[in-house]
Amino acid sequence: MTRKEPPRSNARDVERYAALWSSRTKVMRSSAMRDMMALTQRPEVISLAGGNPDTRSFPPDTYAAVMQRIAAESCAQALQYGPTEGIDAVVDCIAEVMAAEGMAVQEGGVLVTTGGQQVIDLVCKTLIDPGDVIIAEAPTYPGAVPTFSSYQAEVVQIPMDADGMRVDELEETLDALERQGRRPKFIYTIPTFQNPAGVTMSLPRRQRLVRIAHERELLVLEDNPYGLLRYEGDPLQPLYAMDGGEFVIYLGTFSKILSPGIRLGWAAGPRPVLEKMNVGKQAADLCSASLTQYFVTTYFAHGDWRRYVASLTEIYRSRRDAMLEALDEHFPRQAQWTRPAGGMFIWATLPDYIDTTDLLARALRDNVAFVPGRQAYLDGRGGSSMRLNFSGSSEDQIREGIRRIGAVVAEQVALYGTLTGAEPAPAAPPQPASRPARLADVLRLPAARRRPGRREAS
Amino acid sequence: MTRKEPPRSNARDVERYAALWSSRTKVMRSSAMRDMMALTQRPEVISLAGGNPDTRSFPPDTYAAVMQRIAAESCAQALQYGPTEGIDAVVDCIAEVMAAEGMAVQEGGVLVTTGGQQVIDLVCKTLIDPGDVIIAEAPTYPGAVPTFSSYQAEVVQIPMDADGMRVDELEETLDALERQGRRPKFIYTIPTFQNPAGVTMSLPRRQRLVRIAHERELLVLEDNPYGLLRYEGDPLQPLYAMDGGEFVIYLGTFSKILSPGIRLGWAAGPRPVLEKMNVGKQAADLCSASLTQYFVTTYFAHGDWRRYVASLTEIYRSRRDAMLEALDEHFPRQAQWTRPAGGMFIWATLPDYIDTTDLLARALRDNVAFVPGRQAYLDGRGGSSMRLNFSGSSEDQIREGIRRIGAVVAEQVALYGTLTGAEPAPAAPPQPASRPARLADVLRLPAARRRPGRREAS
Repeated sequence: MTRKEPPRSNARDVERYAALWSSRTKVMRSSAMRDMMALTQRPEVISLAGGNPDTRSFPPDTYAAVMQRIAAESCAQALQYGPTEGIDAVVDCIAEVMAAEGMAVQEGGVLVTTGGQQVIDLVCKTLIDPGDVIIAEAPTYPGAVPTFSSYQAEVVQIPMDADGMRVDELEETLDALERQGRRPKFIYTIPTFQNPAGVTMSLPRRQRLVRIAHERELLVLEDNPYGLLRYEGDPLQPLYAMDGGEFVIYLGTFSKILSPGIRLGWAAGPRPVLEKMNVGKQAADLCSASLTQYFVTTYFAHGDWRRYVASLTEIYRSRRDAMLEALDEHFPRQAQWTRPAGGMFIWATLPDYIDTTDLLARALRDNVAFVPGRQAYLDGRGGSSMRLNFSGSSEDQIREGIRRIGAVVAEQVALYGTLTGAEPAPAAPPQPASRPARLADVLRLPAARRRPGRREAS
Repeated sequence: MTRKEPPRSNARDVERYAALWSSRTKVMRSSAMRDMMALTQRPEVISLAGGNPDTRSFPPDTYAAVMQRIAAESCAQALQYGPTEGIDAVVDCIAEVMAAEGMAVQEGGVLVTTGGQQVIDLVCKTLIDPGDVIIAEAPTYPGAVPTFSSYQAEVVQIPMDADGMRVDELEETLDALERQGRRPKFIYTIPTFQNPAGVTMSLPRRQRLVRIAHERELLVLEDNPYGLLRYEGDPLQPLYAMDGGEFVIYLGTFSKILSPGIRLGWAAGPRPVLEKMNVGKQAADLCSASLTQYFVTTYFAHGDWRRYVASLTEIYRSRRDAMLEALDEHFPRQAQWTRPAGGMFIWATLPDYIDTTDLLARALRDNVAFVPGRQAYLDGRGGSSMRLNFSGSSEDQIREGIRRIGAVVAEQVALYGTLTGAEPAPAAPPQPASRPARLADVLRLPAARRRPGRREAS
């Protein structure tokens, strides 16, 4: 699909209305990724930027058969309004998906939403006043950044290492906040195959995090879109399963196991919180699409969703491997990256004199895209990192895309060498795919921290 | 579809989390209609409460054929994420719908949304800080009330008569606000077949309203879900068509001309405002469902949407007539109601000693439902009025539903007579369907205004 690029408003146009903006509008920022969508959707561009699943692998025959059945059995209901909390049969499907990861849902403890994104929005809506503190990981899901900004939250980001969020640093931060008389409204975490870092929180840290939530009576928003997309190793218990329904709000979605185009996610958690989120949802969009809810229930009744997820897992494992190999081949030896056991993303960090926001502009000229690391921070950090997606492109595209990015990076490295007199770095020799010893550096010490003069995120 | 009634949280449960609520959560209120949904969806209940279109009239064969075509041509795209502003081909369909009411859209001047409801939410998000003023009609769309509350807006409601919003009173209100140094952020109006009142703003008032917007540089949110559902008379120009793209934000939706279950609406208007709304939408749900967007574009390409709207118009005209006849037959002579030339709703006002919120509880025991008038006000007014929907029930159901409500009303009238010694009112004699002389009373003087001691809206 090619996109027209709509004309942008000019400054005079905007000024005319600016007196009417709410204070949140003045601080809200557009996701650079969304802005770039027109560019990345050009057919000649290899986009490693989005978080697109491989919807081409969903059989059109199955789609047609499911829709045929809806036409015969429930057409009028699929086209009608539904209850805000979602139709019962979808909640049954959700219970099935959660059971596959060892979770049980309580009656009345699920709210169907317009994608997982709406869960983040509704949790903020229910809990956040301007200036309230949210704890998140560093880096965090780039799509949550505009949401947190739109509620004017103060986001405190906790470093991660190969075992996920540093829960010891979380406790120190909570203590420090407490000394200031501040209490975070919730802790936002993607414990499994984190977006964008690709790391997974260890079992002891999960246990400790849930214990902290109970001891301090703090809500945790556990975002788990990728848990079923595991390419190696054994599943770890979700926080929700450890919590007993008290402090964990669980975010699930059909986007990564079935389709994001149906815009269906859900929240599971303490009923008083879900009831307030339900009121927030009424005001936002009344209910989520009945048509796509019927698509889910009819597919679950007659298709084999687990087999489809298994097929996705095979596809994505090969793509991840292709990307890791291409990184070894084409990225300079100064670069470092994570080796995810599941999910969709690799997080790569370049020498700190490379600014990935600038690099992206250069890369787009060579028809390749990624997410610059700053998109995953609220404070301008992440300037020399990038998020690379391996689920949405073929293995050939991944290899070619990484080759092109590697070439642009090499160009920058050489330029830096020329300017500083340092020896230009040669292409990296083949390395072991996993470099755990340096992983902590990749995640914990983004360049901007050490160089406060660096320019802020755009 | 029967609904389980999920257990409600008890007060102790809620208290545990209440310290975490945002200030908006403390003032947000659930739509009583949404809460009642479990009751009104019981098969034995005749619901004149919702705003449901007649989705049974949409041919299942057409649904199947459209979906078959999507499977063959665009399955992977229908299941994938799309751009936040909506896919281009949907914008073309929107342009076609707007052209049918004499409107032209500007390039880049449309944002596809998750139902029309999301437009109201995004306009508030873009413009409203707590305490900001929104102007609305009295009564206003009950579904907008929770949205306005969720942004902690102060809503000033302007009376209506048979010609819609009293624009002279609007001007007085704007002057009074100006003297207080306050300027409303926007004026919310449903000029055509207003929900819930069923009245239509006259052409001179439309012209004057647009002139006021230009003179005072005020934004107007024109909500027009029903414009194409006209049962008699000639169409009037929408405000958007008079404005020239400067101050009117237009809200359109596929809900009433095609299906609400696809959750697709749109905003058209000044680009600087739409750009901010786009950023707000990114944070809220990333994009609206691609699957249902493809449903629209494929249906528009191969089906005859105008013929479907024409068929709905025939169905609804007969249902409106059936409701008006039943009201004449079964409501007491003290009751008054509007006679809409289109849309979905009749607004009826009973003697002011009748509280329609209480009446609803009684009516539900007789398996019939309506919307109590207070839902259409933010200040507790509307206590003796009710909104009656005629699009979602068959003519037989409508006649039986109105008979049951009439019986409950008669019971209350008789009880009042017994308590006060006044003569119980007999059933009303046949009356002319339209009672323009008394219409102003129906809309302008709700009981609560004259009886300040009355209890507040629940």
